[in-house]
Amino acid sequence: MTISGSTEVHSGPIRLGMVGGGKDAFIGAVHRIAARLDNEYQLVAGALSSTPERSIESGLALGLDRDRIYGSFEEMAEKEAARPDGIEAVAIVTPNHMHYPAAEAFLRRGIHVICDKPMTSTLEDAEKLAALARESDALFVLTHNYTGYPMIRQAREMVANGELGTIRVVHAEYVQDWLTVAAEESGSKQAEWRTDPARSGAGGAIGDIGTHAFNLLSFVTGLQTEELAADLHRFVPGRRVDDNAHIMLRLEGGAKGMLWASQVAPGNENGLKLRVYGDKGGLEWLQEDPNKLWFTPFGEPKRLITRNGAGAGPAAARMSRIPSGHPEGYLEGFANIYSEAARAIRAKQAGEQLPAEVVFPTVEDGVAGLKFIDACVRSSEKNGSFVTL
Amino acid sequence: MTISGSTEVHSGPIRLGMVGGGKDAFIGAVHRIAARLDNEYQLVAGALSSTPERSIESGLALGLDRDRIYGSFEEMAEKEAARPDGIEAVAIVTPNHMHYPAAEAFLRRGIHVICDKPMTSTLEDAEKLAALARESDALFVLTHNYTGYPMIRQAREMVANGELGTIRVVHAEYVQDWLTVAAEESGSKQAEWRTDPARSGAGGAIGDIGTHAFNLLSFVTGLQTEELAADLHRFVPGRRVDDNAHIMLRLEGGAKGMLWASQVAPGNENGLKLRVYGDKGGLEWLQEDPNKLWFTPFGEPKRLITRNGAGAGPAAARMSRIPSGHPEGYLEGFANIYSEAARAIRAKQAGEQLPAEVVFPTVEDGVAGLKFIDACVRSSEKNGSFVTL
Amino acid sequence: MTISGSTEVHSGPIRLGMVGGGKDAFIGAVHRIAARLDNEYQLVAGALSSTPERSIESGLALGLDRDRIYGSFEEMAEKEAARPDGIEAVAIVTPNHMHYPAAEAFLRRGIHVICDKPMTSTLEDAEKLAALARESDALFVLTHNYTGYPMIRQAREMVANGELGTIRVVHAEYVQDWLTVAAEESGSKQAEWRTDPARSGAGGAIGDIGTHAFNLLSFVTGLQTEELAADLHRFVPGRRVDDNAHIMLRLEGGAKGMLWASQVAPGNENGLKLRVYGDKGGLEWLQEDPNKLWFTPFGEPKRLITRNGAGAGPAAARMSRIPSGHPEGYLEGFANIYSEAARAIRAKQAGEQLPAEVVFPTVEDGVAGLKFIDACVRSSEKNGSFVTL
Amino acid sequence: MTISGSTEVHSGPIRLGMVGGGKDAFIGAVHRIAARLDNEYQLVAGALSSTPERSIESGLALGLDRDRIYGSFEEMAEKEAARPDGIEAVAIVTPNHMHYPAAEAFLRRGIHVICDKPMTSTLEDAEKLAALARESDALFVLTHNYTGYPMIRQAREMVANGELGTIRVVHAEYVQDWLTVAAEESGSKQAEWRTDPARSGAGGAIGDIGTHAFNLLSFVTGLQTEELAADLHRFVPGRRVDDNAHIMLRLEGGAKGMLWASQVAPGNENGLKLRVYGDKGGLEWLQEDPNKLWFTPFGEPKRLITRNGAGAGPAAARMSRIPSGHPEGYLEGFANIYSEAARAIRAKQAGEQLPAEVVFPTVEDGVAGLKFIDACVRSSEKNGSFVTL
Repeated sequence: MTISGSTEVHSGPIRLGMVGGGKDAFIGAVHRIAARLDNEYQLVAGALSSTPERSIESGLALGLDRDRIYGSFEEMAEKEAARPDGIEAVAIVTPNHMHYPAAEAFLRRGIHVICDKPMTSTLEDAEKLAALARESDALFVLTHNYTGYPMIRQAREMVANGELGTIRVVHAEYVQDWLTVAAEESGSKQAEWRTDPARSGAGGAIGDIGTHAFNLLSFVTGLQTEELAADLHRFVPGRRVDDNAHIMLRLEGGAKGMLWASQVAPGNENGLKLRVYGDKGGLEWLQEDPNKLWFTPFGEPKRLITRNGAGAGPAAARMSRIPSGHPEGYLEGFANIYSEAARAIRAKQAGEQLPAEVVFPTVEDGVAGLKFIDACVRSSEKNGSFVTL
Repeated sequence: MTISGSTEVHSGPIRLGMVGGGKDAFIGAVHRIAARLDNEYQLVAGALSSTPERSIESGLALGLDRDRIYGSFEEMAEKEAARPDGIEAVAIVTPNHMHYPAAEAFLRRGIHVICDKPMTSTLEDAEKLAALARESDALFVLTHNYTGYPMIRQAREMVANGELGTIRVVHAEYVQDWLTVAAEESGSKQAEWRTDPARSGAGGAIGDIGTHAFNLLSFVTGLQTEELAADLHRFVPGRRVDDNAHIMLRLEGGAKGMLWASQVAPGNENGLKLRVYGDKGGLEWLQEDPNKLWFTPFGEPKRLITRNGAGAGPAAARMSRIPSGHPEGYLEGFANIYSEAARAIRAKQAGEQLPAEVVFPTVEDGVAGLKFIDACVRSSEKNGSFVTL
Repeated sequence: MTISGSTEVHSGPIRLGMVGGGKDAFIGAVHRIAARLDNEYQLVAGALSSTPERSIESGLALGLDRDRIYGSFEEMAEKEAARPDGIEAVAIVTPNHMHYPAAEAFLRRGIHVICDKPMTSTLEDAEKLAALARESDALFVLTHNYTGYPMIRQAREMVANGELGTIRVVHAEYVQDWLTVAAEESGSKQAEWRTDPARSGAGGAIGDIGTHAFNLLSFVTGLQTEELAADLHRFVPGRRVDDNAHIMLRLEGGAKGMLWASQVAPGNENGLKLRVYGDKGGLEWLQEDPNKLWFTPFGEPKRLITRNGAGAGPAAARMSRIPSGHPEGYLEGFANIYSEAARAIRAKQAGEQLPAEVVFPTVEDGVAGLKFIDACVRSSEKNGSFVTL
Repeated sequence: MTISGSTEVHSGPIRLGMVGGGKDAFIGAVHRIAARLDNEYQLVAGALSSTPERSIESGLALGLDRDRIYGSFEEMAEKEAARPDGIEAVAIVTPNHMHYPAAEAFLRRGIHVICDKPMTSTLEDAEKLAALARESDALFVLTHNYTGYPMIRQAREMVANGELGTIRVVHAEYVQDWLTVAAEESGSKQAEWRTDPARSGAGGAIGDIGTHAFNLLSFVTGLQTEELAADLHRFVPGRRVDDNAHIMLRLEGGAKGMLWASQVAPGNENGLKLRVYGDKGGLEWLQEDPNKLWFTPFGEPKRLITRNGAGAGPAAARMSRIPSGHPEGYLEGFANIYSEAARAIRAKQAGEQLPAEVVFPTVEDGVAGLKFIDACVRSSEKNGSFVTL
């Protein structure tokens, strides 16, 4: 019962700034908890809102020094880069369309970027950002946070070890119900920007949650998707982006997949589910019950592998803090991405090789996500024909 | 705790014959239990195998009189039709390609037909059979047995009553793993004929189990499917029919659906699952846990409705025999189709109107199933483009 | 996918009579379905009610010949014993206090008895009945029907094979909610006799359902209970028997157990659950999901064994009719007791040894059940002190 | 989707010290994460081990200043009390027998104490500590952390609001398997002290986990336990304390309960489960799936209430950080106790009344826990007779 994955012991927290995430923002607070949980980061600066007064108010409430609360990300990037004790990393948690300009400002100054997903609001921005990141000395980490769940690491390890054999069929779904009604018309700020193509990009459900499902299936199987056929739809009158997406996938090596993303399926809260089947066995995982992974070697009884429990391997153990039977959840999984990033930042700072087991979503995953959205939109416009990614 | 749906009390069992279902047949024995369970039928004649010796051996073992064991269905149809105490109904449980000729022989003689699914091996046969059935005085009942489950009746009633509002999204899947390996090459008779296009028809998984999923979603929602896009695949080398099928559906009224049928997904035994979402609520049902139905009115906690328990209505009650908490299963659901058929046969014999609540799959459902298979094959040949049914 | 446990093929059904089970009786209809399901019995005679008119009406409705519908069990026993085609076995499904006199009448005439549980309403009657049964050539079968569930047979086999090691801890519970209110005062016939000590005996919940839980734990572990401490209680004002029972058990060999029976726990329908733990592994089973058995070898992942699926052995297979993934339920489990009894009756008729794998609850189990009730009442009267059984 | 329960915004973290919790300690790291998660505390001092070198090594690794790492809790209490920036609160996470002397040292100096459970190793110490705490200006908070789970708060609120009616039956169990074998003899430090009566007290399973279950049922129902009957047992040869405990409870107002604590039940990791039934409805909760609460109003379908989802009230919402469907776990529940304590400390520091909704386990709960252990031991020594608490 030791705390296998703990990283709380180190030379001192990484100095972190934040762009976005002021009052009433959901994901900003999540990033802050994730950064804090393993004692790896200290929030010291912020441009927390595009409205300067709001940024100041939010920053003071979070205990930031007044002179490190900025009115814009450009100002923060410039001034922090000039300080000897300036931020080492920045978390970008704005609506999607602001990710690119903010990331650019920090990457160009050698400040590591931890950015929310989807990476940008357009494929063009994504590719520009990827070019920038490849040239930069700074790291770019994308918070496809579900890849931080221990049992997702376990699943990926089992696939890589050949325990499923050759992958044949993959099913991913991310199903919610909160947009069953037109929440964007009744004052929900979360609904407003997520259904506004100018801020979220061309994808609605497909961008907000479909990219998570897509990233997860790629992460676990290690397979690229080559072609897809998508039927995007807007069920709620007046909605400007898709709220339900049906997709068929063809992956490299001949595997086939289906992906379903919906925000209009009553009874589903955050129903992210992944099922992977090979010629030797199958795996099933559900985000709402994340400490368990079902594994069925063909012809044997199903086995329930638990986080840190019997049957779980080192990839899950290093993402775990407490014994199995004591559930870890969403925040811990999110914190795992931050702690992986911290390991990478420290390795870079020390000029050391990053250990092979340290894994996190990168700018390339971000580009893949935007290519996925783009392909879905293209296919849907061609009456659901298969298109290449 | 009365036995609400029981039909054991009546004027005497219906005289039943059987075509197919000799030794080692799986589904024949299931039909016999289903016929017997509610005391509605008595098996009195059989052409149980295409091999006469085998038919005789099987019939004697089942306690049939020697002179009512026949070497062929033609002989049985002719001789039984001539007897004053001849069979009133026949169960056809052969491989698919024999359904049509056998059904024809009995329908032409006014003997009611209870036929296994898919109805025929070709769409052409299905349409010929439908024409025959429409002209005949005899009933044609198709054993899409899952429509006999009480909670499926409950779901259908709730949709019809508007408890889900306008249907938007439907997900059906039927997932198995028994054909993960080439069972047809290692002596499994079940696998042999089900993967032989000459006997099963053009569909593999799509015909054997996909039609069940398709029928179920049609039965519950009451909606016709207008278009579909299908990606059929054969994963096991040497297999002659699809063993995995990914399908996107477009239903009348604008609803969208997905359907997955697979026989190569390790860990799945008979994973038939139906999820239906409307603008007011959602329903979820799983064949492997059939006594429960999840219902979520939008914005309220999920509710677990149990067979004959609180929240269940008359449509479920009349399909139930015992109190909730005591599980009924596959055989009881199958028996419900037989008992619905018995009610219809008795009503016809008495010249009475069939009560509106008596429901069973008909020849039209059989045609719809073959159209579904046909459309899947056509779409798949056109690289997964949408086609009309 | 053959029907492993099927017994439908044999020389002809056993002639069965029934005592009790007229209109509105719950368990009578269950016994009739169970007798019919495997084609092992034919109901040919009945004394279906203590009111002769009601007996006649019920018998005619069931299709019995008028001259084999009797006004009393004594008359039926006498007349059927005198017929050359008289009944070979009788099902006794009356309230508990009538079990003894009815069983006596048939056993004394060499007619096999299949009797509902608890075996009698008093321990004294139970012991008299046991003495009678030991002397009789006829069989006595007690329908502790839950022992007919395939996964209970599987569990028993695994314990016997040592897969759990030495048994340490056993937990059994049978929890319902239907008597949360005073149903016996609002016209429920089922509630009336089950809460009337003159008809049900001294035990309420402990007799009606506690005996099932007790029988099940004895059947699976093979261990005798040596001592128990019970705290029986009546929560509903005016109720004359216990509706909630808490019990601590001490079993032979040093194992410890707990047993809970309740009819006042809202949300529980028929929550019969068994958990058994040894020094090598554990088992868990739930009647409401009966096709699954959890098995955990210590230090390994939990395994889900399914009826007829991977991991299930011959004891489960011979109780199964259909492939795993197609649920069998309460009626099939009940039918398994009837079919085991049929095997025993046929073996006796043929003068053959009963195969070792044929197992059913006997008169000794009935005595054990009454001793259990008696000990619970005695302990509860002594403020919950431990008493010997 | 705002973060309802967040307390991250305030005037600055509370200065915290820690006694125990050095390297290889499990619960110390948990307390540190819990203190950090909501940004309410900063760890600034420690006496992390009874071995000074080990304390120093652990403290440096955690980033403490060298001069605030102490060789003993007495030294820390004295020196920190003398500093103007001394600790405001201390977390005590040693083995049980050291809780009392450490708590005394800090309470006497007006430093708030957050102490692990069970509160002491003897009832005598517990009562002395309670007297001390009542006299002290400092707060005493006991980390019965499971009371911090949002759905436990929800359950407590529903019982208090009368949604279950009069409570009749309560079932609590906490079941593990890690002591199925003699782990204390093979080098597990956790097993060593927990099975050593000198360090853990007279209770084994009953103290380590039984007190959690007991505290939880008291917290949710608000009912005192008046009498209990216990059958404690040691299954593993050589073990010095109980590893399995069966207990029957009698609560004030006539409710009855059962409690089971075991560390020898293979397949159970941290199976803490609570079921509460009243005359109007029932509740069920499972620690391993903590974001859900089953609620059944009598005669209605079961409802699944989710953390922050439909059906959940303010008591759950103020303990939640993220939207329902995103699981929170053990660490978040633990952090909730720390954050409740922070609210109480800040209210005390500000001379304000503590808001009624702020709730945490106190020294009185600690005494109740030791009385529970004591009563279990007494009853067990009297062959399981009922004793008063």
